[in-house]
Amino acid sequence: MSLNGDDFIKRIDGLNNEVWVDGKRITGKISAHPAFSGVLAMKAKLYDYQVEHCEEFTFFSERTNSRVNFSYQQPKTIEDLKKRSIATQKLAKLNAGLLGRSPDYINTGIMSLGVAEEIFKEENQHYHINIRQIYEDAMENDLTFTHTFINPQVNRSDNYFEESDKVIAAKVIRETSEGIIISGARLLATQGGITDEILVLPAGGNYFEDPYNYAFSIPSNTPGLKFICRESFVSNESIYDAPLSSKFEEMDSIVVFDNVLVPWERVFLYKNFKISLRMFSETKFNTFLLYQAVSRMIVKTEFLLGIAESIVETISIKEYQHVKDKITEIISALEIIKALQLSAMTHAKVDSRNTMVPDDYPLNVAICYYPKIYPRLVEILQLLGGSGLILLPTKKQFDSSIGSYLDDYLQGTNSNAVDRVQLFRLAWDLCMSSFGSRQTHFERFFFGDPIRISMGLYDGYPKEKYINMVKDYLS
Amino acid sequence: MSLNGDDFIKRIDGLNNEVWVDGKRITGKISAHPAFSGVLAMKAKLYDYQVEHCEEFTFFSERTNSRVNFSYQQPKTIEDLKKRSIATQKLAKLNAGLLGRSPDYINTGIMSLGVAEEIFKEENQHYHINIRQIYEDAMENDLTFTHTFINPQVNRSDNYFEESDKVIAAKVIRETSEGIIISGARLLATQGGITDEILVLPAGGNYFEDPYNYAFSIPSNTPGLKFICRESFVSNESIYDAPLSSKFEEMDSIVVFDNVLVPWERVFLYKNFKISLRMFSETKFNTFLLYQAVSRMIVKTEFLLGIAESIVETISIKEYQHVKDKITEIISALEIIKALQLSAMTHAKVDSRNTMVPDDYPLNVAICYYPKIYPRLVEILQLLGGSGLILLPTKKQFDSSIGSYLDDYLQGTNSNAVDRVQLFRLAWDLCMSSFGSRQTHFERFFFGDPIRISMGLYDGYPKEKYINMVKDYLS
Amino acid sequence: MSLNGDDFIKRIDGLNNEVWVDGKRITGKISAHPAFSGVLAMKAKLYDYQVEHCEEFTFFSERTNSRVNFSYQQPKTIEDLKKRSIATQKLAKLNAGLLGRSPDYINTGIMSLGVAEEIFKEENQHYHINIRQIYEDAMENDLTFTHTFINPQVNRSDNYFEESDKVIAAKVIRETSEGIIISGARLLATQGGITDEILVLPAGGNYFEDPYNYAFSIPSNTPGLKFICRESFVSNESIYDAPLSSKFEEMDSIVVFDNVLVPWERVFLYKNFKISLRMFSETKFNTFLLYQAVSRMIVKTEFLLGIAESIVETISIKEYQHVKDKITEIISALEIIKALQLSAMTHAKVDSRNTMVPDDYPLNVAICYYPKIYPRLVEILQLLGGSGLILLPTKKQFDSSIGSYLDDYLQGTNSNAVDRVQLFRLAWDLCMSSFGSRQTHFERFFFGDPIRISMGLYDGYPKEKYINMVKDYLS
Amino acid sequence: MSLNGDDFIKRIDGLNNEVWVDGKRITGKISAHPAFSGVLAMKAKLYDYQVEHCEEFTFFSERTNSRVNFSYQQPKTIEDLKKRSIATQKLAKLNAGLLGRSPDYINTGIMSLGVAEEIFKEENQHYHINIRQIYEDAMENDLTFTHTFINPQVNRSDNYFEESDKVIAAKVIRETSEGIIISGARLLATQGGITDEILVLPAGGNYFEDPYNYAFSIPSNTPGLKFICRESFVSNESIYDAPLSSKFEEMDSIVVFDNVLVPWERVFLYKNFKISLRMFSETKFNTFLLYQAVSRMIVKTEFLLGIAESIVETISIKEYQHVKDKITEIISALEIIKALQLSAMTHAKVDSRNTMVPDDYPLNVAICYYPKIYPRLVEILQLLGGSGLILLPTKKQFDSSIGSYLDDYLQGTNSNAVDRVQLFRLAWDLCMSSFGSRQTHFERFFFGDPIRISMGLYDGYPKEKYINMVKDYLS
Repeated sequence: MSLNGDDFIKRIDGLNNEVWVDGKRITGKISAHPAFSGVLAMKAKLYDYQVEHCEEFTFFSERTNSRVNFSYQQPKTIEDLKKRSIATQKLAKLNAGLLGRSPDYINTGIMSLGVAEEIFKEENQHYHINIRQIYEDAMENDLTFTHTFINPQVNRSDNYFEESDKVIAAKVIRETSEGIIISGARLLATQGGITDEILVLPAGGNYFEDPYNYAFSIPSNTPGLKFICRESFVSNESIYDAPLSSKFEEMDSIVVFDNVLVPWERVFLYKNFKISLRMFSETKFNTFLLYQAVSRMIVKTEFLLGIAESIVETISIKEYQHVKDKITEIISALEIIKALQLSAMTHAKVDSRNTMVPDDYPLNVAICYYPKIYPRLVEILQLLGGSGLILLPTKKQFDSSIGSYLDDYLQGTNSNAVDRVQLFRLAWDLCMSSFGSRQTHFERFFFGDPIRISMGLYDGYPKEKYINMVKDYLS
Repeated sequence: MSLNGDDFIKRIDGLNNEVWVDGKRITGKISAHPAFSGVLAMKAKLYDYQVEHCEEFTFFSERTNSRVNFSYQQPKTIEDLKKRSIATQKLAKLNAGLLGRSPDYINTGIMSLGVAEEIFKEENQHYHINIRQIYEDAMENDLTFTHTFINPQVNRSDNYFEESDKVIAAKVIRETSEGIIISGARLLATQGGITDEILVLPAGGNYFEDPYNYAFSIPSNTPGLKFICRESFVSNESIYDAPLSSKFEEMDSIVVFDNVLVPWERVFLYKNFKISLRMFSETKFNTFLLYQAVSRMIVKTEFLLGIAESIVETISIKEYQHVKDKITEIISALEIIKALQLSAMTHAKVDSRNTMVPDDYPLNVAICYYPKIYPRLVEILQLLGGSGLILLPTKKQFDSSIGSYLDDYLQGTNSNAVDRVQLFRLAWDLCMSSFGSRQTHFERFFFGDPIRISMGLYDGYPKEKYINMVKDYLS
Repeated sequence: MSLNGDDFIKRIDGLNNEVWVDGKRITGKISAHPAFSGVLAMKAKLYDYQVEHCEEFTFFSERTNSRVNFSYQQPKTIEDLKKRSIATQKLAKLNAGLLGRSPDYINTGIMSLGVAEEIFKEENQHYHINIRQIYEDAMENDLTFTHTFINPQVNRSDNYFEESDKVIAAKVIRETSEGIIISGARLLATQGGITDEILVLPAGGNYFEDPYNYAFSIPSNTPGLKFICRESFVSNESIYDAPLSSKFEEMDSIVVFDNVLVPWERVFLYKNFKISLRMFSETKFNTFLLYQAVSRMIVKTEFLLGIAESIVETISIKEYQHVKDKITEIISALEIIKALQLSAMTHAKVDSRNTMVPDDYPLNVAICYYPKIYPRLVEILQLLGGSGLILLPTKKQFDSSIGSYLDDYLQGTNSNAVDRVQLFRLAWDLCMSSFGSRQTHFERFFFGDPIRISMGLYDGYPKEKYINMVKDYLS
Repeated sequence: MSLNGDDFIKRIDGLNNEVWVDGKRITGKISAHPAFSGVLAMKAKLYDYQVEHCEEFTFFSERTNSRVNFSYQQPKTIEDLKKRSIATQKLAKLNAGLLGRSPDYINTGIMSLGVAEEIFKEENQHYHINIRQIYEDAMENDLTFTHTFINPQVNRSDNYFEESDKVIAAKVIRETSEGIIISGARLLATQGGITDEILVLPAGGNYFEDPYNYAFSIPSNTPGLKFICRESFVSNESIYDAPLSSKFEEMDSIVVFDNVLVPWERVFLYKNFKISLRMFSETKFNTFLLYQAVSRMIVKTEFLLGIAESIVETISIKEYQHVKDKITEIISALEIIKALQLSAMTHAKVDSRNTMVPDDYPLNVAICYYPKIYPRLVEILQLLGGSGLILLPTKKQFDSSIGSYLDDYLQGTNSNAVDRVQLFRLAWDLCMSSFGSRQTHFERFFFGDPIRISMGLYDGYPKEKYINMVKDYLS
């Protein structure tokens, strides 16, 4: 496998996906569009990096008879899990853990579905072959995916059921000999329009009926498929002024299906609500996604700790008790999230498919914990930075005739003004810019509604032994 | 007094203040510059409004023998305090409480200094006349002010003293027969460059020496005075897309003094560290500023409650316990801040200058409380809005050929898509845009470092009677 | 009215109520029993105090043609409300606000029911006469009451309905010409067995059927009525060792009705579920109870502030930022609760019965706020006291031959050992003894399940005007 | 080694230590005294248990040529650390993790000092021999220890230095040929008076001078040594009524040294402030104590989870979102503390003494985390239990003639009244009794002042690599 960054960019540019930004459809190379150039350059860098470090980031696959990306590997030993996590972290370090949809994230999900193919066999003898083929194609071509599993947020009441004559949530409106025809929308495809394919999975909620129960993957340029983007959060194309958003703005989009034909051979679930319900846990899809995510969060937390401590040094506030106490909160979060990842790995068990599966509980605790602690870490940055996070002149101010004033008046302890402002702009872009706020929001809702995650952990956790511990004590 | 919005705009445009944005000095009308047009239009609206509601917003001043703005009135009765607070709130309603530096804020401060003129007499027989004149000029012409009392954040250590041969914090570098010559910088003049004058007050911290101890007010266009702005947070000039920043972005600036001559008749404090220390509390400057601020915060909280409840209705989430509980948090904050304002007013006392001064303690509690609760209120908006706060297409997307998809897929319960997105954009601009994050930061640090405020409240609070209550109990 | 403490004690002793403590029925004078002697002496002190300060604590009632206790007065002006609150606070100061069921608490409730007698007329022409009589008797004799409105906690599920053939929650099992016969239990009668009467009100929850819908008041010694107490929390009869529990342990009891005949003339509600639902809000029963409670909470918070600051002085920890910050939290709670009380009083309105009714919203906010903040205030005491709250020798240790060691080793800064330990024992008894923990629990659940209170506040609060504020802004 | 529970009790009883409770010196068997009988029986059970499970709880020591308690073993492999932690947890399960000073706690400390003997050599050629001998004696006889390292809390100001002519903090007042003579006090010897020996270590703080710098271990019955106890928190000797305090009340005491002769051969540090400062970290004393403590905390948290979930089932509140959310908080705490322990073990490293030392950072994070989360877990129990935690009749009430009422009225869903009350009494004794409050306080301050621990973690943590991560990113 020798796809490098340039190859990847060419492939994506070549798709001519239908992507709409601020009222206009993108024509020409998407990699040259200001809303996407940064993130595509970042993704290209990931490809280049794995070409350069082939041993670490690929494995030999017997299925494809070639070396393929690490994220597609079925882990069979704890050592495999460890290597996987190290690779995720090394890639994450290239983007400070800010690329929430690093390609290995959904790749990992594709792997878990592909390995668990037999689950999809129940309803239809072809579905498991289809998911296997999707998996093998992905591996062979080192594809990237966006995915979507939320329906439009029209009404979140528990009693809301979409009327059957309406088309809002994407659904099958017709079947043909070639495939199923989908119309309607799905939400929040991050990086929608800049990946090779889109993986569409059951959306949950009150959508029990057949037309809503399906899963497939199709190329992003399938006719009728449209990605309608939110406003871009690249606040400034200057790396100095927007040190994060200029590189990592992933974009989110509404996915519109306008009579999209999904060929039968790309469908691996249809009309089977029971499998919809079971598939996320039984394929270990969630477990593996979380394993990737937690590894990435470690890197992000390290970066945040680095920024916080750099601020402390730059404006000399180490002497204050409450400052140390705040940094200790970050340190604690880092050690806790690392420990939970270690626990998940150490207590992994082999399942019936010969997959080494990380322990679910520490990962679920991590995904209850991080959405709560991350906003606090961001708040700590804000509290440490204080007024320094407001008065941030742009590079052009420094470069203008009044720049010398700034050189004098914005210097830090042991730091010149340009460097000091650069550091504070970095903090600002992580915790206060539109991009940064979206990052916080993204972590807060990373795996969905926090209350549902919390209830899910409660429901699944083995509580009997602790009840028995109390019973034994009392008797 | 009949200054209306147009008059005000003309006056500001006419000043030709030296204001730098993104590497360029503004030439031409500042009211036409995209970074300032919104906020200046807003301020003009405030002037127009008080022309229209003259009875409520002005009083007859014997000093000037004319009707002048309510904020300049020396309150002598609780009724005066009540009218003042109602006027502040009515103006605040025009900007949802988001204009932190509404003109009445610093006007109020000027009043408190002017009324307490005798404090400045101690050192020099002219200083009290100067502040009186500044006060009367301000009243007569209904001037607006920016102000500054922070030095550059080079080093925040308690042990840091600026070396005497350096010019960083603005200081007197020379005296002449005409006045004092100032060089150096001051931070964080909000609305710097779009007000008539700049009020400069002692900065506190480790700046005990004479050259750092001064107070004055000078026109914003005084030669050598430069306002260097941060990046503008007007994310979009469309009112639909940026419903708040397009109107209320106040801008913050570094104030550079490059050999600025401050005429003696504008100086009302100099070389007297003792007065620097006492003036904020003895003139009731802080108390009156807080009284204005708390009145404004009430309006802001009401607006935030309105947004939160509108989201609840729009996506039908009223049935969830935790949703109600979160709205109740906002209600509680609103009632608490209102009650503290009432308490400050009800327990006001007349001082030796015949001024009715609000009770300081409830105001100080408010300013400990609001910086902590406001970020939580903002977080509640984020938690209620969920994914709805991410996928926010611009107006141009709605107006383009794919707009009809959005009409279908982004509708809310009982709300069409355009209205629903407008509401969510409003919430986003309050809690997640660069503008919104700056608002949160502004409230968090409204009156300075929260820990110092908390310690100040402790130090000033009458604790003896409670210690005695315990002593009595035990004996 | 000239009932003094002795009269009161004699009256209670004379009732010979059926009270069970630790497996034994109390025989002899209940005022001499160690579980009750402290609290009864405290209540006697309240009677004595109002005899001594008759003007302040009584008013002339035309109904009884005599001076009666202030808590029975129907307030008609804001001045009346103010006097009422001052009287409550003066009494509360005698017990540091720790007597949650100070007689004026339920007296106030009786007043609100008596004044609103017409509500009970709807079903039966006699009921309003009965409640009027109960009110006038109470007034005339300055009676004290316990009350109960919780059913046993067998099953708190929303789907739980008690089976009709079971007798668990107290219910009417028979009617006779003389009255209704009640069997079953009610929970948590604080001071049950040491008051003149017991007021029994509808219990809420899933108890819709007739036998559960009743309200009455009967003497505590009515045959068949039994008070089964929890363990006493008087840890020690020494005032030094148990400075709070030795005086203010109010005791809680299960009230058992074993075929208790309630005469018709004591019944004021029966078989009318609709009135059960409406009565608490329509009679302003809840509003007036809260008004009393909030007044008491102010005193309790002042006492807590006094203890905290005394600890700070005794062990010299004023220099620590975090210590000041913690005391400021207490100060803030005090000012907030005072401000909410002021707001309720200031915004009071006269209702159709000519009663001046405090504003409900600030009171409801207070009762959302205090149950959350009080445990934090208690925690602050724990954090300030540190190890000093553990090593607390008893008075007997001081008085023994090793006492001189303690005199040397347990002294504080500016405080001898006996005084220092006394102060810390006081803090311990407020925040760590069984008595203190029960106090915390009591405040936490003072007005019921915090989540239900929070939802109730949401439901009742006028939110439309804030929604309209947003609508106006957007249009 | 075959010391069983009876042997241990006989040995302790035989010491006739000078222990004062409530003004009286204990005479006769201390194991029969109500304040100590429970905890001594518990400790006896630990001895019996290790006799019964000899393989697991002992190892063969070449130093003593016998099997000795696991806690004295120098760990040399990660496997050793794992066994050690499992043994600690198995013992902890016998007391639900509530015995904070389980013998293996200080034994572990003795081991770490003994193994690191060379540190004490610097000053004096005998000191390292002394600590080695103390270690070997302890091992050979399976001794138990109390320890103390806090001086009296007279004045906690940073500027406080004890005057040299006063004797408050225990200090060397004289040297003789036989040893050093100590007078003064030390605080908070938990289990003081019911262990074989007392280990006395440097107390920290502003005690730099020679007389305060010493370390030794002496028998608890050394003449002049007195243990002055606080009030006992055994609220009731009935196991039903006081299910925890009747068994695990460990007692805390002031240790008075009245001219106590400490023989030279028991001294291992003297007059060397530098070693005082270094010894806790260099011997890994703190690290090993924390490793034990964290293992115990896991068990305690499991027990707490068991109680919480038992309450949920008993009163049927599983259907409420917020209830599940609260249990999830406990689950999260459990998984986090387990993960940190795993991390400390997994990342252990061999030091220069061939000891396998757990990683310090996760342990330090644990000891920042647990003191904050434990009070919240306790609060969750309170919130879940609600009014059920107040109305808890004693066993005697159940056994009396009114018991049958309780049987009817206090039953739970699927639980009879006696069992239901027993469960709630258990919860109450953990979270609300004087004993329970002391447990909370104990965990909160387990390793000292939380702020100092937090600052220590900050100071010691390797932050450079994260600063460099940011530098690399920006360049």
